[in-house]
Amino acid sequence: MRGVGAPASRSFAKPVRQQARQVPAGPAGQQTIRRQNLGLVMQAVMEDGPSSRASIASTVGLTRSTVSSLVEELLSRGLLSDRGQQASGSVGRPGRLVGLSDRTVGLGLEINVDYLAASVLDLSGGVRFEQFVRHENRGMPIEVVLDKLGDLARTALTAVEQHGLMSVGTAIAVPGLVDAETGTLLTAPNLGWSDTQIGREMARRLGRPNQYLSVQNEANLAAQGELWEGNGRRWGDFVLVSGEIGVGGAVVVEGELLMSGAGMSGELGHLSVDPEGPACPCGSRGCLERIVGQEALLAAAHLDAEVGTSIGLPDGGVQALVERAEAGDPMTVAALERAARVLGQACASVANLVAPNTIVLGGIYAPLFPWLADPFRAEFECRSFVARYSGVAVVQSELGPAAAVRGAASLTLRAVCADPQLVDAVAGSG
Amino acid sequence: MRGVGAPASRSFAKPVRQQARQVPAGPAGQQTIRRQNLGLVMQAVMEDGPSSRASIASTVGLTRSTVSSLVEELLSRGLLSDRGQQASGSVGRPGRLVGLSDRTVGLGLEINVDYLAASVLDLSGGVRFEQFVRHENRGMPIEVVLDKLGDLARTALTAVEQHGLMSVGTAIAVPGLVDAETGTLLTAPNLGWSDTQIGREMARRLGRPNQYLSVQNEANLAAQGELWEGNGRRWGDFVLVSGEIGVGGAVVVEGELLMSGAGMSGELGHLSVDPEGPACPCGSRGCLERIVGQEALLAAAHLDAEVGTSIGLPDGGVQALVERAEAGDPMTVAALERAARVLGQACASVANLVAPNTIVLGGIYAPLFPWLADPFRAEFECRSFVARYSGVAVVQSELGPAAAVRGAASLTLRAVCADPQLVDAVAGSG
Repeated sequence: MRGVGAPASRSFAKPVRQQARQVPAGPAGQQTIRRQNLGLVMQAVMEDGPSSRASIASTVGLTRSTVSSLVEELLSRGLLSDRGQQASGSVGRPGRLVGLSDRTVGLGLEINVDYLAASVLDLSGGVRFEQFVRHENRGMPIEVVLDKLGDLARTALTAVEQHGLMSVGTAIAVPGLVDAETGTLLTAPNLGWSDTQIGREMARRLGRPNQYLSVQNEANLAAQGELWEGNGRRWGDFVLVSGEIGVGGAVVVEGELLMSGAGMSGELGHLSVDPEGPACPCGSRGCLERIVGQEALLAAAHLDAEVGTSIGLPDGGVQALVERAEAGDPMTVAALERAARVLGQACASVANLVAPNTIVLGGIYAPLFPWLADPFRAEFECRSFVARYSGVAVVQSELGPAAAVRGAASLTLRAVCADPQLVDAVAGSG
Repeated sequence: MRGVGAPASRSFAKPVRQQARQVPAGPAGQQTIRRQNLGLVMQAVMEDGPSSRASIASTVGLTRSTVSSLVEELLSRGLLSDRGQQASGSVGRPGRLVGLSDRTVGLGLEINVDYLAASVLDLSGGVRFEQFVRHENRGMPIEVVLDKLGDLARTALTAVEQHGLMSVGTAIAVPGLVDAETGTLLTAPNLGWSDTQIGREMARRLGRPNQYLSVQNEANLAAQGELWEGNGRRWGDFVLVSGEIGVGGAVVVEGELLMSGAGMSGELGHLSVDPEGPACPCGSRGCLERIVGQEALLAAAHLDAEVGTSIGLPDGGVQALVERAEAGDPMTVAALERAARVLGQACASVANLVAPNTIVLGGIYAPLFPWLADPFRAEFECRSFVARYSGVAVVQSELGPAAAVRGAASLTLRAVCADPQLVDAVAGSG
């Protein structure tokens, strides 16, 4: 599957360990091979935990002296750190261990329709900072939104740097079609944005011109967040249905995100479930997200006026829906049941087409799962004969609305671990 | 992507040449390696054309004597044949050339809803026999259908064997979900068949117990037919929409058939385009094929009574539609236009989900393409914002209804070329 814009992530999605290369080459080739080998050493330590140089050498198939030189570079770039003497009892003379640095972190940012978010993860998957900020981005000048996101990014970086952590780059999740190579948001129907140079604009605001920076579709990043930081590895082939104002989707086959159409695939929210239904800003009618997106849910539960614009966050409109449903409010329960049936219908079509093992309800559907699950399953199973034969589990995302921004932070770390020379050498690290 | 039941085809779908193995191993391991190396020699000759043993040895990275032994075995199994002396002027002493045998053929069979088909292809892709037989298979005892298919298979084999051709196996296309490992048709909603051991039943009827035999979904085979015997390699990532009584579909990404769900994916005909629409035997309502399948088309054009049961073939109901449309019959043209709009809507949802480069209209939609194309494109483009951004071509299959049965014949040949020991040694070949 094509992986434009996400080569770094793909090398980690593969289960097979690459073979190290010792082939002689010209200076340019040697430099390329060294970059690859740096990535292989990182991968070995990520998979095997703290290791001696000798054991890394044996794992990746390079000489001890080459590995020592690679490890020194990774220490100087702050990606590995010294972990002290190997325990006695191992074969041979005990060496010093190196492990993943606990000071290195990646920044994930998210622009959604009605909120902004930042998350900082370390190399062990630990969340070192996370903040969601309500921000109605529709009708707002793009500059204002990006300024606000820049503020949030600085808040995140300042917070983690105060604890001695070092951020190595940023990935930004956006709710629309992306040209990942240029960091351009091509179109975001719910925001009304098109052809916006998010990458260039945010690079300027972040003020770290040499650092890794990537812009990706939010549902794609959410699926990668589920794979890397959630339960995605257990689900087999899965379809993620991520509810927000819009409804994002992503298809994962054999542990890899389906990236056909240069990553433009997975726009589940624009399945037309009612061809003559309400107009959608995408140009079509009756799109799934017009019927079961967050605002439609709030309107159906007659909560829209009450919640006003404070929607889109765990403590926003979804929380209002959860509270009403928990209290047994008939209008809310009925609205959720109707939405679940439509979602079940749409996902049945998707399952007939893609035949996944698992359908994952994420985003706002995660906290609403207790009310959605039964009617969803009932409709889904009677509508999808493929699901009846192949067996499809319907599960809840544990990451919920945080999947995309964590996927973004994780992508950043995976990109620099695959190509450590994306990180400048720092003084005093290791 | 998973490829249960179709490993042989996958090895040929990959662009990268595998490396030959000379690693010493135990007797069982040596036998496995020899089988692999036989496949590599076949692949080299398939890609490079008639070759000397020396050039094959250099291509696959095995010794000249090993290649000579492999070539002898392939000659004895009838997959390669002697092509005489190499032209002078080549480097070194001219050797004898071996090429793909022009006597080796594969048999493809197809059970569709209202017809049976057989096709015999040779290793150059030449069609050596092809026959479509009208046969209403609904409401017919399964035994009767399989007996009739057995008769057709024998007719095909007798015809080609009279010309000295040697069939090396059979693949059978069926319009339903398949467990390819056991050759079981799990369910075929339009036939009303379930849990039918097509593989075992047909093996008995074919009377060639040691030959390769495979049962596959017809739309999957149609997509592979397009890839191997049609224009599929030019289309990039494509979605095949194959109209028959039902509507089959298949998704191809980077030259490989998406086989998620053990090949159960691609059931495009069961996208629900009208959730409260007519009941479908699959258990859902308003499935695409209920609205735009061949019988719905004939009924909409008021041709159903006239055509009666003689539908489903190039000379059946489709031909009636083509003739009426060519004559400008307003009812027929309007029926095709309405169908094209619904197909365009459904394919827009698929394109939003899968983001292909190309939508291919196949099966009965191929001869109807001139009347479908414009309204299809109009609806498709206004409904799929992904297509508007990524650019999606809408094209006509040249293979049309023959894609599946040719894909089946081609699969057979590819399976035995990848593992030549599936073919018994024959006397007098080479």
